[in-house]
Amino acid sequence: MTRTALDFDDNWLDPEELAHIRRRLPVTYVHGLPVRRGDDGEVERIGLLLRTLDTGALGREIVGGRVKFHESIRAALLRHAENDLGPLALPTVPLSLTPYHVAEYFPTEAVSPYYDPRQHAVALCYVLPVIGDCSPRGDALSIDWLTPQEAVSDDIAAEMRHGQQHIVRAGLAHLGILP
Amino acid sequence: MTRTALDFDDNWLDPEELAHIRRRLPVTYVHGLPVRRGDDGEVERIGLLLRTLDTGALGREIVGGRVKFHESIRAALLRHAENDLGPLALPTVPLSLTPYHVAEYFPTEAVSPYYDPRQHAVALCYVLPVIGDCSPRGDALSIDWLTPQEAVSDDIAAEMRHGQQHIVRAGLAHLGILP
Amino acid sequence: MTRTALDFDDNWLDPEELAHIRRRLPVTYVHGLPVRRGDDGEVERIGLLLRTLDTGALGREIVGGRVKFHESIRAALLRHAENDLGPLALPTVPLSLTPYHVAEYFPTEAVSPYYDPRQHAVALCYVLPVIGDCSPRGDALSIDWLTPQEAVSDDIAAEMRHGQQHIVRAGLAHLGILP
Amino acid sequence: MTRTALDFDDNWLDPEELAHIRRRLPVTYVHGLPVRRGDDGEVERIGLLLRTLDTGALGREIVGGRVKFHESIRAALLRHAENDLGPLALPTVPLSLTPYHVAEYFPTEAVSPYYDPRQHAVALCYVLPVIGDCSPRGDALSIDWLTPQEAVSDDIAAEMRHGQQHIVRAGLAHLGILP
Repeated sequence: MTRTALDFDDNWLDPEELAHIRRRLPVTYVHGLPVRRGDDGEVERIGLLLRTLDTGALGREIVGGRVKFHESIRAALLRHAENDLGPLALPTVPLSLTPYHVAEYFPTEAVSPYYDPRQHAVALCYVLPVIGDCSPRGDALSIDWLTPQEAVSDDIAAEMRHGQQHIVRAGLAHLGILP
Repeated sequence: MTRTALDFDDNWLDPEELAHIRRRLPVTYVHGLPVRRGDDGEVERIGLLLRTLDTGALGREIVGGRVKFHESIRAALLRHAENDLGPLALPTVPLSLTPYHVAEYFPTEAVSPYYDPRQHAVALCYVLPVIGDCSPRGDALSIDWLTPQEAVSDDIAAEMRHGQQHIVRAGLAHLGILP
Repeated sequence: MTRTALDFDDNWLDPEELAHIRRRLPVTYVHGLPVRRGDDGEVERIGLLLRTLDTGALGREIVGGRVKFHESIRAALLRHAENDLGPLALPTVPLSLTPYHVAEYFPTEAVSPYYDPRQHAVALCYVLPVIGDCSPRGDALSIDWLTPQEAVSDDIAAEMRHGQQHIVRAGLAHLGILP
Repeated sequence: MTRTALDFDDNWLDPEELAHIRRRLPVTYVHGLPVRRGDDGEVERIGLLLRTLDTGALGREIVGGRVKFHESIRAALLRHAENDLGPLALPTVPLSLTPYHVAEYFPTEAVSPYYDPRQHAVALCYVLPVIGDCSPRGDALSIDWLTPQEAVSDDIAAEMRHGQQHIVRAGLAHLGILP
C-alpha cells in the first residue's frame, strides 16, 4: 500500500517525512474491494491485485492507500482505484461514507488481524463496484477476478498482505456471499 | 477537541509538532455520542459537553479526540470518555468497529458539514452508552443530558462546535429516534 | 402502499385474505428511497411519489410495498420500483441486504413513528439510485426530485404518509446529507 | 425455530393457521446471536443452542423466532431470548434496529444460503450480549459458549440448522473476530 502512495501519487510528502510521521500518529487509509455484479445485482467476482513485493516475491492486495491532506474519502478512493485499476475501470464510489469494515493496522504483530511493519493505519473499507476495463498499473502485475470461493481459499489467503484476507472475508460477509 | 488531546492526555507529541503534522496529513479521530437508555432499551437521553472555548465563549461538543500512535479505536474511545466524563461514567465500547457515521473535518469552510480551522480530521463516530456518574473534567463545565427533541433544537445546534450537530442528528437517526 | 400491492401486482392473495392475514402477523415490507447522484458520487436529489389517497386528498410516499411469498428482497425492490417509477427507471439494487433503516409500522398510533391503520408491517429501507427516466404509474400522479433541503421541509413532511418522512430523513443522515 | 414459536409462546395462532399463513407470505423473524464480551469490550464467546430436532437427531440453532402481530422487534428479541436462554440471561437489546445481517429463508433449497422447508422467512439478525446466567429451556438441551474458532469449525457448522452457520460467520465478521 505504501509503495502505491509513495511511488505513484503526486505526493507532497517526501519519503523521509512520511516515514517519520508514520511513527508519530496513525495514518488514515481507505480500501476499495473491487467487485463485479451479476444481472440480479448480486456480486459474482472480487478483484484482487497481484503485486511484486519489496522482497521480490509476489503478494496480493486490495485497492487502497492513504488519504492525503485535504482530500475527501471518496476522492482518495477514486485516486487509488485509478492508480491500481487504470483510468477505464469506472468504479462507483460508495453512497454512504459508513464503511463495511474498519481495519486497524499496527506495526506490531498480533495486536490485531492487520499488521504493517511501517505504520499504524486506520483503514476504512468500502465495496467498490467496477464496470469498466481494469488494467493493472505501477507495480501491479495483474488484477484477478475471483469467485467468492476462490477469494477465500487458503491459497489466496496465504498470498494476501498485511492480513487483508480478513478485509476480503468481511466484505463477502457484508455482501451476503461468504461461502 | 484539540485542547482535550493536548492538555489532558499524556501526549508525547508537543503542540508544535502536532500543529505541524496537522497540516501534513489527516488526523484520525473518534467520537462517542454519550447516551442513556430506558428500561425498554431505547435511548432516552443524549449527553453533550458544555465547554469554555478559546474565545472565552461557551460551546458544546461531543466526546472524542484523536487516536494516538499504536492506540486502538476502543482504547481511544475509553480514554476520551474518561477525559471528558470522568472515571465513573462506565461507558460501553461498541461491539463492532463499524461507525454509525464518518465525519470529515476540513480546515476550509463549506467543503463538508464539518469545519475545523486547525486540521483535516477523519472522525469515526460511535454511540457510547453510559450507566455511571458523569463528572465534567478539564475544560468541560458540564455534561447535559438532553432529550432527542432538545438535542436537535436550534438553540443547541447553534452552540455545537465544528458542525457536530450533524453528528448528533446522524446518531439519533441511526438510533431511530430523530424527532 | 397497500394499493400498490393490491392493484398493480400479479397478486395471488385476494384482498379479503390479505386483509385477514394483515391482522394475524406482521407483513414484510421493502422500501427503496430513489436518489440521483452527482458527478462526485454524492446524492443530489431524492425522488418522492405524489399519490391520490383513498380519501381523494394528495399524499407523498416513497417507493415500496410488501414482499411476496418466495420473492427475494431484491426482486421485491425491483418489482415495486417498476410499479412506481416505470420500466425505464434503471434502479440499482443494493449491494448488501443490510438496510439503512428498519421501519416498524403499527396499526396503533404513537407506538412508533410509523402508523398504518391497515397492518403491522416491518419495512427494510434501502437507498435506490436510479439513472433512467421515471414515469409515474398506477395511482402515482408524479415523481418529484427534491433537494435534501426540500425533502425534509415541513411542507413535504406534512404530505408524507404513514410517518415516512422519518424514513427520508434517516436516509439523508445515512448518506451524510441531512441538512 | 418453529417449535420455539409454537410450543413455548403464548401464541394466538393455532398450528394449522400458522402453517397455512406460512405458505401465503413471508414471515418476519428476528435472530439474536448471544455473545459474551471480555474486559476490553471484544466479544470472546458465542452462544449456540443444542436442540433435539423433530427427527430425534441433535442440531444447533441461534436464538430467535417469529415476530408476533403488534410486537416490536426488541420485544420479540427479548421474548425469544427468555424462551431460549431463560429469565436470568440479562440480554442487552440492540441500540439500533439496523441488523448486522438479513437472512432470507426459503422453502426451496439453494435459492439462498438459508433453507427452511416450512416457510419463507425474512430474519433480521442482531448481536445479543448477555451477562447473566443462561439455562436452556423447552427443547434446548444446552447452550454452549464457543470461541470464534470453535463457532466456525466444520464440526459445528455441520450441526447448524437451516444454514445458520452463515448467520454466525456474518456476525463474527461484523464483530471483527472472524478467524
